[in-house]
Amino acid sequence: MVLFTGVMNKTVTFSIPTDNIVNGNIKKVVKVTPPGPRKKMQIAVTEPGLRNNGPSPDYILDNYLNTLTQRVKYHLGFPENIRYDHHATLAPLLQFHLNNCGDPFTENPVDFHSKDFEVAVLDWFAKLWEIEQDEYWGYVTHGGTEGNLHGILVGRELLPNGILYASKDSHYSVFKAARMYKIDLEMINTSINGEMDYSDLKAKLLHNRDKPAIINITIGTTFKGATDDIDVILQTLKDCGYSHEKFYIHCDAALNGLIIPFIKNMISFKKPIGSVTVSGHKFLGCPMPCGVQITRKSCIANLSRKVEYIASMDATISGSRNGLTPILLWYSLSSRGQIGLQEDVQRCLDNAKYLKDRLQQAGISVMLNELSTIVVFERPLDHEFTRHWQLSCVRNIAHVIVMPSITRETLDDFFVDLVQQRKMWYQDGRVQPPCVADDIGAQNCACTHHNGQYSLKAKKTMATIG
Amino acid sequence: MVLFTGVMNKTVTFSIPTDNIVNGNIKKVVKVTPPGPRKKMQIAVTEPGLRNNGPSPDYILDNYLNTLTQRVKYHLGFPENIRYDHHATLAPLLQFHLNNCGDPFTENPVDFHSKDFEVAVLDWFAKLWEIEQDEYWGYVTHGGTEGNLHGILVGRELLPNGILYASKDSHYSVFKAARMYKIDLEMINTSINGEMDYSDLKAKLLHNRDKPAIINITIGTTFKGATDDIDVILQTLKDCGYSHEKFYIHCDAALNGLIIPFIKNMISFKKPIGSVTVSGHKFLGCPMPCGVQITRKSCIANLSRKVEYIASMDATISGSRNGLTPILLWYSLSSRGQIGLQEDVQRCLDNAKYLKDRLQQAGISVMLNELSTIVVFERPLDHEFTRHWQLSCVRNIAHVIVMPSITRETLDDFFVDLVQQRKMWYQDGRVQPPCVADDIGAQNCACTHHNGQYSLKAKKTMATIG
Repeated sequence: MVLFTGVMNKTVTFSIPTDNIVNGNIKKVVKVTPPGPRKKMQIAVTEPGLRNNGPSPDYILDNYLNTLTQRVKYHLGFPENIRYDHHATLAPLLQFHLNNCGDPFTENPVDFHSKDFEVAVLDWFAKLWEIEQDEYWGYVTHGGTEGNLHGILVGRELLPNGILYASKDSHYSVFKAARMYKIDLEMINTSINGEMDYSDLKAKLLHNRDKPAIINITIGTTFKGATDDIDVILQTLKDCGYSHEKFYIHCDAALNGLIIPFIKNMISFKKPIGSVTVSGHKFLGCPMPCGVQITRKSCIANLSRKVEYIASMDATISGSRNGLTPILLWYSLSSRGQIGLQEDVQRCLDNAKYLKDRLQQAGISVMLNELSTIVVFERPLDHEFTRHWQLSCVRNIAHVIVMPSITRETLDDFFVDLVQQRKMWYQDGRVQPPCVADDIGAQNCACTHHNGQYSLKAKKTMATIG
Repeated sequence: MVLFTGVMNKTVTFSIPTDNIVNGNIKKVVKVTPPGPRKKMQIAVTEPGLRNNGPSPDYILDNYLNTLTQRVKYHLGFPENIRYDHHATLAPLLQFHLNNCGDPFTENPVDFHSKDFEVAVLDWFAKLWEIEQDEYWGYVTHGGTEGNLHGILVGRELLPNGILYASKDSHYSVFKAARMYKIDLEMINTSINGEMDYSDLKAKLLHNRDKPAIINITIGTTFKGATDDIDVILQTLKDCGYSHEKFYIHCDAALNGLIIPFIKNMISFKKPIGSVTVSGHKFLGCPMPCGVQITRKSCIANLSRKVEYIASMDATISGSRNGLTPILLWYSLSSRGQIGLQEDVQRCLDNAKYLKDRLQQAGISVMLNELSTIVVFERPLDHEFTRHWQLSCVRNIAHVIVMPSITRETLDDFFVDLVQQRKMWYQDGRVQPPCVADDIGAQNCACTHHNGQYSLKAKKTMATIG
């Protein structure tokens, strides 16, 4: 395994504290702290005249760029499409300050903005999610969090004494919003695959029937890639006696908002939903975080405030907004087109299934949700290994997010490395792979206790493939 | 006058609705609406295969870049330093997705971030605003608004039943925060120069003595560049019997946070203030909005939430954060250094005074605040003129913000153009320049009513210049 060294030297010694091993099983894999102070290249801001023999900013930058270049093929655990090859074309934009201050649809008193590109991008998403051009309002945000903060704020302004319902697998920004906006929160359980537990939602809706409901629906949870079912939730609201004026639905489709429309017609403003948000840097890819927020024009009248000196209405969260990202999104959408994106989606779904099958055949605990490209599996024992492949871990599980930038070759390399490393980790039987039944279900767990059920399933998969 | 034409064709016909002219004076200069639908280059996102004879994305982008290049020297009304010449060096960063998710000070599970650069930038500002490295917490934000949203949230979390005090010239995001966070708001009057009216603050503090105070101090108001006096406000709090635990002070130093420290030692965490925010794209300059937020470490314990899957604490507003901007800020700070910035500040102050003096000598209503580079003057009659110079206007006034990217030659060109245009606008006496006494004070107003007082002042200035 190649160790990462460079500007951001985070190399750590591998060791497991003994109090985490109970009867040969790891109770909890903890993040191992580095053995001493980290070596770091000196990058403090220094005065040009006082640099003496220290490295110049250009030297530091070159070093940093080299490190990133080396590390780009080991980027498996985070939902960013890093196949981003049109930087040379777009780089001249960095000469200007581009600021899409305020509303994208109002005329600007200054030329250094990209609102026409922004509106083109919004129009594209409005069409994708089935809302007419003259019925929607939206903007390009600084990321998924801003979309959630906006959607939930729109909900609260429309239903000031509403209760926020969100599954416990919702993005952390949803709970942040509840706290920021002082909204009462009902946290809804999830099933083992990460999807909202609709019976729990129903029970809580019935219990609070006297108050309106602001519902956060997750279209692709961050860790397991689960999708809450809009139609089931709408039916539940109806069953509980909530009329359309008594609820507001915000859809957090950060990751899957660009995947699901190419598989099934689920995200649609023809249904009584209020807002949808998607990240721009995830499935589409962008050098910096950004997102798209679409809501109904009728919903934001309440929120809009005229700000004279920028000659604009302001119904956004952020006010001054990045003018570069709308152009980057516009360029990517124009380059790939719907057909290109459809191909990306299919390839990612296929590759995710490919990885899942290989892990299953190798007797490694694994789960892959429907409509998702996130392969969840047992947490690797070695922090060095997770750091090398830049995996994200929670409790006893880790995941690989199969994005358009990840090839089957990379997945093979990863798989081979994991299998070889596991042989070393578990060779003497003193430590066993973790039980993940509580995380992804007994049927997906290959630990010594649940192995029987798992083997049966794995055999079935092999029969299907073979 | 060169008209702006190009991708963003906003050219409008100049006309003044007659109901705005009362006794030869303009009652209110209104924004003239374009005479018909705007011609616009087709920039909707199109499928690569269905482009037929339409322009390609590269062609549209080239056109847009050409327009920006032509327009860059007529950018006087907005507070962005657009002298930004190191794009070639930094462009390779666009190859990667850089995301400083969560807390800047925690180790990242992924390499594609720039937290080491971010901490270097934060350390630099901490030193500038006099707070020790181990006592501050902060982050690079997406702009001034996020800084205000964060600072005021910190205040509310510390003082949950506090009242927000903000002058009516505060940035619009401050009022947005009050509404988002459901904080009671006391709006404080301002004097004619835009500074907080301390006697009004005192009266309102006394009136609400049973509740804690969250105070927004503006260090450079958006339109007049006025600076609220921290020391007077602290004294007022003391006089009204507010002990340190009974107030929280957030300083919105979006524009002047990088100017004032080079003139006088006013912004300092040695005083009992809670947070300071500055924009990165304003005085320093950056191709996209960003900012720096510094607060006391002791203040944010309340706000921080552990988010396991990003292996980070999250005490930010935005969660996923732009990883490019900290590097851009770091590079600019390293290139200019304190000495270079000090020179920029002095030059901008000199140039602002130069423009003010020229306007005054020409008998044009004008005001320039102490510690400010914003020259406020009578609103030009012609929308085409304000659009050409990209001026920002409010009621009867406009302003030029003298940034490091604006040369004295540009100011001369602007001045000559204004003087020539005024001759045309006001030649037949049917229309008179607007009275701005209500906006910037009778002593700064050169209208027919207030001309006497003004002429006296102008003569004094001329005598001083020699």
